[in-house]
Amino acid sequence: MTATIHRLADRPPSLEPMIELVAGDMNMVNAAILDRMQSQIPLIPELAGHLIAGGGKRMRPMLTLASARLLGYMGTRHHRLAAAVEFIHTATLLHDDVVDGSDLRRGKRTANLIWGNPASVLVGDFLFSRSFELMVEDGSLKVLKILSNASAVIAEGEVNQLTAARRIDLGEDRYLEIINAKTAALFAAACRIAAVVAERPEEEEVALDAYGRNLGIAFQLVDDAIDYVSDAGTMGKDAGDDFREGKVTLPVILAYARGSATDRTFWKDAVEGRRDGDEDFAHAISLVRATRAVDDTLARARHYGQRAIDAIGPFASGKAKDAMVEAVEFAVARAY
Amino acid sequence: MTATIHRLADRPPSLEPMIELVAGDMNMVNAAILDRMQSQIPLIPELAGHLIAGGGKRMRPMLTLASARLLGYMGTRHHRLAAAVEFIHTATLLHDDVVDGSDLRRGKRTANLIWGNPASVLVGDFLFSRSFELMVEDGSLKVLKILSNASAVIAEGEVNQLTAARRIDLGEDRYLEIINAKTAALFAAACRIAAVVAERPEEEEVALDAYGRNLGIAFQLVDDAIDYVSDAGTMGKDAGDDFREGKVTLPVILAYARGSATDRTFWKDAVEGRRDGDEDFAHAISLVRATRAVDDTLARARHYGQRAIDAIGPFASGKAKDAMVEAVEFAVARAY
Repeated sequence: MTATIHRLADRPPSLEPMIELVAGDMNMVNAAILDRMQSQIPLIPELAGHLIAGGGKRMRPMLTLASARLLGYMGTRHHRLAAAVEFIHTATLLHDDVVDGSDLRRGKRTANLIWGNPASVLVGDFLFSRSFELMVEDGSLKVLKILSNASAVIAEGEVNQLTAARRIDLGEDRYLEIINAKTAALFAAACRIAAVVAERPEEEEVALDAYGRNLGIAFQLVDDAIDYVSDAGTMGKDAGDDFREGKVTLPVILAYARGSATDRTFWKDAVEGRRDGDEDFAHAISLVRATRAVDDTLARARHYGQRAIDAIGPFASGKAKDAMVEAVEFAVARAY
Repeated sequence: MTATIHRLADRPPSLEPMIELVAGDMNMVNAAILDRMQSQIPLIPELAGHLIAGGGKRMRPMLTLASARLLGYMGTRHHRLAAAVEFIHTATLLHDDVVDGSDLRRGKRTANLIWGNPASVLVGDFLFSRSFELMVEDGSLKVLKILSNASAVIAEGEVNQLTAARRIDLGEDRYLEIINAKTAALFAAACRIAAVVAERPEEEEVALDAYGRNLGIAFQLVDDAIDYVSDAGTMGKDAGDDFREGKVTLPVILAYARGSATDRTFWKDAVEGRRDGDEDFAHAISLVRATRAVDDTLARARHYGQRAIDAIGPFASGKAKDAMVEAVEFAVARAY
């Protein structure tokens, strides 16, 4: 399949139109986030604030807000729910960094590095509980069902990823299963709940779910590709981080599948932690280039991006839809 | 205050009457637990099963079931909710053991020791999400509110405890605040939701909440006292565990408050990790004896136990009430 995404404007695709679209709503979401991460225990807002104020794009709550705009929703319920979505995401990041033993996130020192693993685990639990309190306050069992299910799927995906760690024979299907669970599920839920709040018919819920899910996959694929694009300073992430941690992402899976016996031995050694030096990474870059593994990871991303755009095809044209389409284009174009 | 708890029977108080009272219901709860801890990812039921099948008393779900009996509730909704309560508890234990770096729980090797911290963190998250899915399936927003609030309070209490770790100047009030949050809140919620499911008036909810909360505090106080009773093999916990980990529990707080300047220096050194040998523990035992710190911790426990019993005073007499009263008597008598 040849995915074609048309840009009509005379500028590169950007997230700006979506950011502008939801700017007013986002102020309300940020207020809810700040309000609800408070606690009598000073360490909680301190640690949570480090990550929440720490330059994240608020991609998931932004999707809730943009989806609500697309549907012409005029209420305020989605502000609190978008905050709940961001809390789930933040809790996941805190636990992820503990699991991976990471020391940098978005170019800053991670919470676990500063406050230790125990604090990160427990503040993550707190934010996760708070997210459910926010949903309960909203009172929609349908929203609660969507987000509690997404949370379970995310946790399941994280365990799946953990058991698949450093296995060079992972394969594209299981890799997709993992990113579907750990990334795309929350993107999908974030969009879907807007349709529930706006009391739209099931098919619009499903369409927004598909938009979010496919965007989430595209987003993750591009993230994984960027790690093998040598001049990337994008996203607060350094090129080679995944490689040095032995992560089996799609560029690796494709380069491994397409490589010679010698190349395969190299990749196996790399993901099992026996090759993680600068010269090893340089060799890895040369292998992903030779096998077109990054190009094709990005082609896969464009495929899912196109599906995201088509999923919202039936909705009325306008600023919201334009912004949502351009957000996808931006997501898949980041690596160029 | 002199707490007096009367035993009419000619045998020591036991948990058996409560276990028998709810045996049939507990089979349904166990079936729900087993069913809902399943996953496509084998590590999840394996790790969760280690702890869930590992000889816990199922104290919290048992309280939901007994409370429902007390109210004459004849439905089945509480089975699923009792499973949700046990999942919250299990998730907390998994994360606790990571936070404390524990290697033994209930006399068995901990999950984090066998499968590592990352797996314990993530499977905890999974069980926590599953507990919310179970509640959402039940569909009561009131139950969801009670349990999501309890979860947030537990997490907050755990962070509070973490920031208070190894501080000899903790004081009884802050200690009570911590055990109220990390232990008593879930006991209270477990009892309270029975009244919601049985559609009883607010005052019965409040009464069951008070029963659970006071029982929870009594339970924790006795646990903390047992650590300083030298021949304790009770509860799969060894005497001296808390001491060696530098935990500031009520026996320590009382012995410190009542001790000489020399004793205080000893306790400060002990909780700060500079005295954790066998001879140090023997000296600690002699100090808690001399200051009656264990006796008075148990007297405090009896005080809360009596409040638990009085909280359910207004309910009709019968097997359920007798079993719930005896469970309290058992809880406070364990250390003798």
